[in-house]
Amino acid sequence: MQHLGAQLRRVEPGLVEIWLPYSDKVTQQQDGFHGGAMGAVADIAGGYAGLTIAPEGMEVVTAEYKINFLGSYQGGALRAIGRVVKPGKRLIVCTAEVTHVDDHGKEGPCALMQQTLVPVPKTY
Amino acid sequence: MQHLGAQLRRVEPGLVEIWLPYSDKVTQQQDGFHGGAMGAVADIAGGYAGLTIAPEGMEVVTAEYKINFLGSYQGGALRAIGRVVKPGKRLIVCTAEVTHVDDHGKEGPCALMQQTLVPVPKTY
Amino acid sequence: MQHLGAQLRRVEPGLVEIWLPYSDKVTQQQDGFHGGAMGAVADIAGGYAGLTIAPEGMEVVTAEYKINFLGSYQGGALRAIGRVVKPGKRLIVCTAEVTHVDDHGKEGPCALMQQTLVPVPKTY
Amino acid sequence: MQHLGAQLRRVEPGLVEIWLPYSDKVTQQQDGFHGGAMGAVADIAGGYAGLTIAPEGMEVVTAEYKINFLGSYQGGALRAIGRVVKPGKRLIVCTAEVTHVDDHGKEGPCALMQQTLVPVPKTY
Repeated sequence: MQHLGAQLRRVEPGLVEIWLPYSDKVTQQQDGFHGGAMGAVADIAGGYAGLTIAPEGMEVVTAEYKINFLGSYQGGALRAIGRVVKPGKRLIVCTAEVTHVDDHGKEGPCALMQQTLVPVPKTY
Repeated sequence: MQHLGAQLRRVEPGLVEIWLPYSDKVTQQQDGFHGGAMGAVADIAGGYAGLTIAPEGMEVVTAEYKINFLGSYQGGALRAIGRVVKPGKRLIVCTAEVTHVDDHGKEGPCALMQQTLVPVPKTY
Repeated sequence: MQHLGAQLRRVEPGLVEIWLPYSDKVTQQQDGFHGGAMGAVADIAGGYAGLTIAPEGMEVVTAEYKINFLGSYQGGALRAIGRVVKPGKRLIVCTAEVTHVDDHGKEGPCALMQQTLVPVPKTY
Repeated sequence: MQHLGAQLRRVEPGLVEIWLPYSDKVTQQQDGFHGGAMGAVADIAGGYAGLTIAPEGMEVVTAEYKINFLGSYQGGALRAIGRVVKPGKRLIVCTAEVTHVDDHGKEGPCALMQQTLVPVPKTY
């Protein structure tokens, strides 16, 4: 994510906020944010949210996610808010809401993700 | 995708094959292929498959997709095969199967995606 | 849904609430609410929510949905709240939150759904 | 499923085939197969496929599924083929393909599902 310029702006138990500023690393041919970038930022926001409630010594891996794309935007930044919906020992269910914020602070819906994480022992 | 080093290797009506070689652009902290890279290559393989059957003058946009991650791998390359399951005027439903292929040609399941595309008039 | 005993309890623009009381029509072998019943009530709550904002003369059909099951319960009732996340001419994106409510009013998370609807001309 | 008239027609390791004949128990207001019935038969076909490869003493529960609806049909029957895509100790990933078969044997695509199961110890 550092490679793409993403910033971790808020971390609370079960909630994480990540911003991804517009750059030529996250755009597609028509110069909007690329779906792959939206998917990645949503996946990571959900994953980090899950990590905030994982037991000590555990990390999380994404088992699966589903994402709806709600709008395409140029410029400004993406704000992804990941939230834990259901913590669990075997599975953690999260959502991520991706919103576009333009340079004047105007918001628009960008993507909505629903995700299943698996807690696993840390390997590093 | 060029940015990530992806190659389009096969295009048939309703089927597309894309390869993504291992590099530091598509890896994560534990040095496996990043989920975001798997998601992106799956989304693109499905999208291109849909494009092969879209009417002249139309392109496709991804409305949504769902992806299961089946294994993590280092080295080698990812092969993503996108297939049209159901063509339609309003919606096109596709799948993408992502397989890891190591340097000796050994295959392992990597990800499975199910996707909904919307045909829209070309804007360029 | 009448067949299963479901009740429409709240209808607002973009929001619908449906209750499904426990009965032998919606249970499985271990005597909890059946996944099929949870899926059906979620799909219908989302679909009705979409219908509240569909243009005159249009109905909606479900293109796809994704549902996570969060808990299993016996007795009481299921409350499904369907919400429109993103209205649109071509697609409507909705969520449904299914909560178990026991006979003393205690709530527990049951299922979470994310859904894509297509507005189509009424055929009846 | 017995309640709905479903029949288990084929069981192999990792594959299950279920048929659901048309009846007033599985239809909706416009007299086609109901989405809830398609979702239920797909979920069950995938779940049974997973069960065929679950270790002795274990059953499976559905963690989540995603289903695309591909066509609507009257009369005839639905054939759902559930397949294990990836067995695992923690998670089993399956698909189910639902096809409509009319009274003359003509087939049409009905629904496609992708599903995550969790093996759990039998409780009965």
